Amino acid sequence: MIKQLAIVGGTHGNEFTGIYLLKKWQDNIELIQRGSFNTETVFGNPEAYQANKRYINSDLNRRFNQVELENRTLTGLEEVRAKQINQQLGPKGDPRIDFIIDVHTTTSNMGPTLLLTAKGKFYNQLAAYVQMNMPEVVISCDEDHKTNQEQHFLSSIAKHSVMVEVGPVPQSVLRHDVFEQSERMTLLILDFIELYNTDQLPQFPVTIDAFRFLETISLPLNSKGERIAMIHRDIQDKDFAAIEPGQPLFVTFAGEEICYQGDTTVYGSFINEAAYYDNNLAMSLMEKVTLNCR
Amino acid sequence: MIKQLAIVGGTHGNEFTGIYLLKKWQDNIELIQRGSFNTETVFGNPEAYQANKRYINSDLNRRFNQVELENRTLTGLEEVRAKQINQQLGPKGDPRIDFIIDVHTTTSNMGPTLLLTAKGKFYNQLAAYVQMNMPEVVISCDEDHKTNQEQHFLSSIAKHSVMVEVGPVPQSVLRHDVFEQSERMTLLILDFIELYNTDQLPQFPVTIDAFRFLETISLPLNSKGERIAMIHRDIQDKDFAAIEPGQPLFVTFAGEEICYQGDTTVYGSFINEAAYYDNNLAMSLMEKVTLNCR
Repeated sequence: MIKQLAIVGGTHGNEFTGIYLLKKWQDNIELIQRGSFNTETVFGNPEAYQANKRYINSDLNRRFNQVELENRTLTGLEEVRAKQINQQLGPKGDPRIDFIIDVHTTTSNMGPTLLLTAKGKFYNQLAAYVQMNMPEVVISCDEDHKTNQEQHFLSSIAKHSVMVEVGPVPQSVLRHDVFEQSERMTLLILDFIELYNTDQLPQFPVTIDAFRFLETISLPLNSKGERIAMIHRDIQDKDFAAIEPGQPLFVTFAGEEICYQGDTTVYGSFINEAAYYDNNLAMSLMEKVTLNCR
Repeated sequence: MIKQLAIVGGTHGNEFTGIYLLKKWQDNIELIQRGSFNTETVFGNPEAYQANKRYINSDLNRRFNQVELENRTLTGLEEVRAKQINQQLGPKGDPRIDFIIDVHTTTSNMGPTLLLTAKGKFYNQLAAYVQMNMPEVVISCDEDHKTNQEQHFLSSIAKHSVMVEVGPVPQSVLRHDVFEQSERMTLLILDFIELYNTDQLPQFPVTIDAFRFLETISLPLNSKGERIAMIHRDIQDKDFAAIEPGQPLFVTFAGEEICYQGDTTVYGSFINEAAYYDNNLAMSLMEKVTLNCR
């Protein structure tokens, strides 16, 4: 039974969609209320939004592992903000909030994507429900073998959580289509939880298709650490399409192709995400998986 | 006769394409050398690039009117940088550099666009030449009735200039297609100037089509100055397509349409450009015009 739910927007200050959705819902609270649980809203990083940046000192959505939350010597803006949010929604380990929906956007062409943070029939049925009502939604499984205590995402404060991740939209921009997709997905998640709580879940398909995170791959650098290549046009905007062994992944600024060296078919996500340039990450590689829903 | 030419990249620190093109050309100087003139490169705002922002204190590409350049009391980072660049390439009014190409990108779906900064057969033939070799290029006339002294763009230091403006690409991202289009357009401009200088210009079409700036329109705000609407899906990504009287331009966050109140057909450009949110600008409106090329 889920009794307390929080919707978080603006965990990244330049992802405007979640921030404006929060404003809309705060002015029209009935849109996010359901009978069987309480919903509250949290603006993740208002200071970063004011500065029109993803973050001020460090990425807020990497600040929530247990060790860091308990380390009082950490005083960067996001380190402090993480402790505040943990106090408000958590504390992690024994949280007041049962379920967190964290609303994000990406510059990658991922379409409306539902990121599942853990395994299990509850998540699989949630994903199936969203997809039954919104067939364009892609399911991405990011359970990365960390324990919840080790996990550094904001949503890991609660025992259960998902991330809504929609693109493409540039940083610091609102798109009508992305706004509507993000709202629709979020409301469908609330609807599912209402049905779950009230024991009214519908019949689900036996399985649904999804993608599971394998690894991140980096932009090619020279010996000085400078980028020497960019994402190849053949995979730009091709999130969740197959990448075959030998296929061009990058093109150097001089025009030479750099190809995928793996020996199995994989699928890209977060391809050319703006925020990942900080760490010279080019994309995530995923495998196709099947989730059991009954 | 054009003897001294400068290519500027990174006038905006989060428009990576021009910055990486400069790096490429600095390492391969023969790509931008031509027989009849000298080419140099200028990195507009390296400090803003380091901070991964459009600018630090104020938009560098609005800092070049004569009065501001001569005002020694202005000491913001971009105000100082403008004076440095003016000293290096100018001084405006009697500049060392004859021609500036300033390489920009946009989050709007403008495709490869050539922005002409002044009227006249030289510019019209330059535009025709680029379009003959790259038919997808759109010609946009931004001669806004200011004198060159009043004009605040970096490129106004030189007597002659154009801006290369390619999108869509998010801020702080490199796209293979946008990179190639920007490079191709820039090199075609160099080729045209070489042909012009050596009296080898080809035959041009009698006229070419272009768009001329009319006005900017703002995002709808409430009485507190907060945005209440976003660009409507019907015109998102439709730069340079017709906007008819009565057509939806915006949609409020509650879902109500706000329509175009003008009584003539116009054409949008810079639709939903990220950098324009600072000033709550939604897009530019353009008229269709014909440029004489003979």
